[in-house]
Amino acid sequence: MRSFNHAADKADGRAVRLAARSGALDGSTAGLAPGFVQGNLAVLPRDWADEFLRFCQVNPKPCPVLGVSEPGSPHVPALAADLDIRTDLPRYRVWRDGDLTEEPGDLLALWRDDLVSFVIGCSFSFEEALREAEVPMRHIELGCNVPMYRTNVATQRAGRFHGPLVVSMRPLRPADAIRAIQITSRLPAVHGAPVHIGIPEEIGISDIARPDYGDPLPVRPGELPVFWACGVTPQAAIAAARPPFAVTHAPGSMLVTDLKNAALAAF
Amino acid sequence: MRSFNHAADKADGRAVRLAARSGALDGSTAGLAPGFVQGNLAVLPRDWADEFLRFCQVNPKPCPVLGVSEPGSPHVPALAADLDIRTDLPRYRVWRDGDLTEEPGDLLALWRDDLVSFVIGCSFSFEEALREAEVPMRHIELGCNVPMYRTNVATQRAGRFHGPLVVSMRPLRPADAIRAIQITSRLPAVHGAPVHIGIPEEIGISDIARPDYGDPLPVRPGELPVFWACGVTPQAAIAAARPPFAVTHAPGSMLVTDLKNAALAAF
Repeated sequence: MRSFNHAADKADGRAVRLAARSGALDGSTAGLAPGFVQGNLAVLPRDWADEFLRFCQVNPKPCPVLGVSEPGSPHVPALAADLDIRTDLPRYRVWRDGDLTEEPGDLLALWRDDLVSFVIGCSFSFEEALREAEVPMRHIELGCNVPMYRTNVATQRAGRFHGPLVVSMRPLRPADAIRAIQITSRLPAVHGAPVHIGIPEEIGISDIARPDYGDPLPVRPGELPVFWACGVTPQAAIAAARPPFAVTHAPGSMLVTDLKNAALAAF
Repeated sequence: MRSFNHAADKADGRAVRLAARSGALDGSTAGLAPGFVQGNLAVLPRDWADEFLRFCQVNPKPCPVLGVSEPGSPHVPALAADLDIRTDLPRYRVWRDGDLTEEPGDLLALWRDDLVSFVIGCSFSFEEALREAEVPMRHIELGCNVPMYRTNVATQRAGRFHGPLVVSMRPLRPADAIRAIQITSRLPAVHGAPVHIGIPEEIGISDIARPDYGDPLPVRPGELPVFWACGVTPQAAIAAARPPFAVTHAPGSMLVTDLKNAALAAF
């Protein structure tokens, strides 16, 4: 594996994709290519893809679709001209009948001419907007993963895809929470405004200290827990639907596109 | 006093002003002239007016200025061509050295050629936007006044004007609170986004059941108290500054303008 010089090679989406393609980058894309949109990946066989697209369409907050490929094509030109889904993420997860079976560094040996790729907006984009607005985020300060929870809010079912809404939580002081709602409302393509604030038990979270995914994070006195719809929701729906074959990104190992975060703002 | 036929005469801002001018209307303007902007009134002598304008400028959330008259002029053409501040509100409050001394139905006998009128945005406008978005407001359902609180947040002082930020409170379910933040963020001319949510003691409110103005309102399980900057803030600052002469609107008895609420939206 070649070395990946973060200082030199993280400058833009293409540099990160080329580093992933060459094998020089095989880990997290967090913090790479500042300003560029990163996306969650879901790859499904054609006979599951239409239902999944409908699932995304009826659940736009957890599943905001940034791009979809033609069946069999590893390209998504709307996101980057040279993009190759098979090689341009640092690491992948392969699911067979709902079980995680492999975590390869590329999909070259696994690619099939019936696969459809979905790229779904990711919280990295809205976190960049929050950081620029000086809204503090404790999981970034502490260098850990954001805590995520399966809620008692059901997604809208579409065919074989269904399951709970999964949310990420960021503890914020009330004035920062209001500012965060304003900022993320501008970004519907990357989960948009929070889905809940302040009363976790109202959405079925009985113990805020025990997230279902990610790391626990304290909510301190004077703070409210603020919850955003999370890209783990479609992954959980895919796992529950148990298609014979599916691929997602490995956690934190995203597709970096040529889109700019600043260009996503709805107003 | 002539009778005021609400069904016929409440249609627009001009009809309400004419009813107030004639004496047919001498009470609350709540619910009259749907769609038209209503405003708080503050009238001050010229040698206090510049400081008050500065106070408003540095405290735009509680004191969003919709219009200011020329000294001595009872007209504010930006708000309505035919508007006469001396007659067009149903009822006024007169303050001398900070004490409430009279509640006249017009200012004709009190008018002076050094008076400057300020019209300040009012929560009626954003409540109309919330109602249209089907955000429920309990004080409207119960037919009582919104509860208001003096906070421990100081306004920015300007000359002789200073004092605490006064806030109004509406209890909302979290999803409605998020929607309300989005909707009122569009309306900076009428107090804009909330200033606080969820933790009243953080802004010095020790007993939510005991407002300083208005009526108490229960915050039920599953709801958060949401706080907006309130037009009582400038009134409290005027009372504290104790100018020798000042006029405000009587509570609920607003100036109805020809501006449309829908035209206020910033985006």
